[in-house]
Amino acid sequence: MTERLRGGPSCLLGPGDDAAVVRTPDGRVVASTDLLVEGSHFRRDWSSAADVGVKAAAQNLVDIAAMGAVPTALLVGLACPADLPAAWAREFTAAFDTECALVGAVLVGGDVSRSPTLTIAVTALGDLEGRSPVTRAGAEPGDVVALTGRLGWSAAGLAVLSRGFRSPAQVVAAYRRPAPPYAEGPIAATCGATSMCDVSDGLVQDLGHVARASAVQICIDTPRLEVAPRLQDVGRALNVDPMRFLLTGGEDHPLVATFPSAKSVPRGWTVIGRVREGEGVLVDGAAYPLPGWDSFSGGARG
Amino acid sequence: MTERLRGGPSCLLGPGDDAAVVRTPDGRVVASTDLLVEGSHFRRDWSSAADVGVKAAAQNLVDIAAMGAVPTALLVGLACPADLPAAWAREFTAAFDTECALVGAVLVGGDVSRSPTLTIAVTALGDLEGRSPVTRAGAEPGDVVALTGRLGWSAAGLAVLSRGFRSPAQVVAAYRRPAPPYAEGPIAATCGATSMCDVSDGLVQDLGHVARASAVQICIDTPRLEVAPRLQDVGRALNVDPMRFLLTGGEDHPLVATFPSAKSVPRGWTVIGRVREGEGVLVDGAAYPLPGWDSFSGGARG
Repeated sequence: MTERLRGGPSCLLGPGDDAAVVRTPDGRVVASTDLLVEGSHFRRDWSSAADVGVKAAAQNLVDIAAMGAVPTALLVGLACPADLPAAWAREFTAAFDTECALVGAVLVGGDVSRSPTLTIAVTALGDLEGRSPVTRAGAEPGDVVALTGRLGWSAAGLAVLSRGFRSPAQVVAAYRRPAPPYAEGPIAATCGATSMCDVSDGLVQDLGHVARASAVQICIDTPRLEVAPRLQDVGRALNVDPMRFLLTGGEDHPLVATFPSAKSVPRGWTVIGRVREGEGVLVDGAAYPLPGWDSFSGGARG
Repeated sequence: MTERLRGGPSCLLGPGDDAAVVRTPDGRVVASTDLLVEGSHFRRDWSSAADVGVKAAAQNLVDIAAMGAVPTALLVGLACPADLPAAWAREFTAAFDTECALVGAVLVGGDVSRSPTLTIAVTALGDLEGRSPVTRAGAEPGDVVALTGRLGWSAAGLAVLSRGFRSPAQVVAAYRRPAPPYAEGPIAATCGATSMCDVSDGLVQDLGHVARASAVQICIDTPRLEVAPRLQDVGRALNVDPMRFLLTGGEDHPLVATFPSAKSVPRGWTVIGRVREGEGVLVDGAAYPLPGWDSFSGGARG
């Protein structure tokens, strides 16, 4: 990976040297890093190399978008077992590249190592284009909470796979390949979002981080969360309340943000709640039991 | 790690949000990433948590220095076995921070995950301060090759540990805690270095990368490489030519650079060879057998 020279408008020096050089016209760079460990974050029997490539890129690109920035460049460390087929790494990298290309970002550097545990370490860099970063700490009482992107689909897909099924295909595909709404991050920033994050651990849990960082209470109104018929089907088949997929399921990586008023919410976002004085997250006016989400059981843990 | 708020002059937004924000006054950012995998890059019975912290920081900081840049910010992904003592992670992080502080760089973000294999993924960012990056591709026939920093000590320490010894303490310490000459990278750039890299895989091998990237031949004169008495002792004790530690040993991370003339070589650097037309690396006029370096046998591999 380090030997291939690639580049984009942001890449001044690509892979193959001691370090890459990336353009940062804004005078600041946004940076985020994430690990994907086989067995914890993906399973090779559930996800293809290309699926893992999309997921690895997506979850890092959306971290940049969630700051209101545009992803520009990525670095990848790949630690592989000796018996990993060369085709796996090739397909992983090709899919990773393709996902990055969706937003104009490029792979600028990397490292490859042996490891008994297949591990992918991704760092994404981004450009704020002169805007202030939208953190988790800016929500104010009176703000509305709005969401854009698919929610609950990945969790439904994971639940299906966990029970040994392979369909409905749409929810399984959603689990395998998240499709975060990257472009909406900078749009939300431009529209005056006061706080933002992507949903990676579950809506209630991630809004809990916003509530804590902003020292506010966030109220979610579930009647505003649309449960797609496909998720209702999965809920019925697995005897699970499908709303649970939306409230506690991670890995779809939609964006959730707070805005000063309903009028400032961009088109394509859905108002799902409001910000008040107080603390924590309420769901339809009550605390919501949050057992945590076990990636590989599709259900409660510890 | 992500929950602690830290910062330095370059850090505009530290850990705890979706991403960090780092100042890049130069309009460019230098970025490099490296993996350290237990069993491949370190052993917990040979290196303390603090040793690994120093090593993880050092090998990434020097990648930035080797471009002629000043390290500013780092991100760390730490994948730990469930039974990793909490103290290990604390001591690792404290030593990592201390090493970064040597150059004024700060930890701005990270990720923590479970993994059966202790794995550390580090990304370092740096600032060129208006200078051009010094790549591996700029060496010209007629240039001199110069080196600064400890060379061969880490390999000697590794050889000692590999044979079950724990002394001489100085070489073992050199293996455990590399001490790269960070400040010399920007100095070399200012003095007009035409190419530069750190020695991480071995002098001959790393200069081979420079020779290839620059399309030149590099000639090393071993009489100019001083073999410290301590390394001679180790060579005698292990029945190894100590020059081999200097020519093929990695992980000390000295800097090696080419300069247009001996006059432009900064103080503290030693001229060790010259650049000619041609290809590859010659040692005292001959090709040098390069079997590769096995981190954990202290000897040849492949």
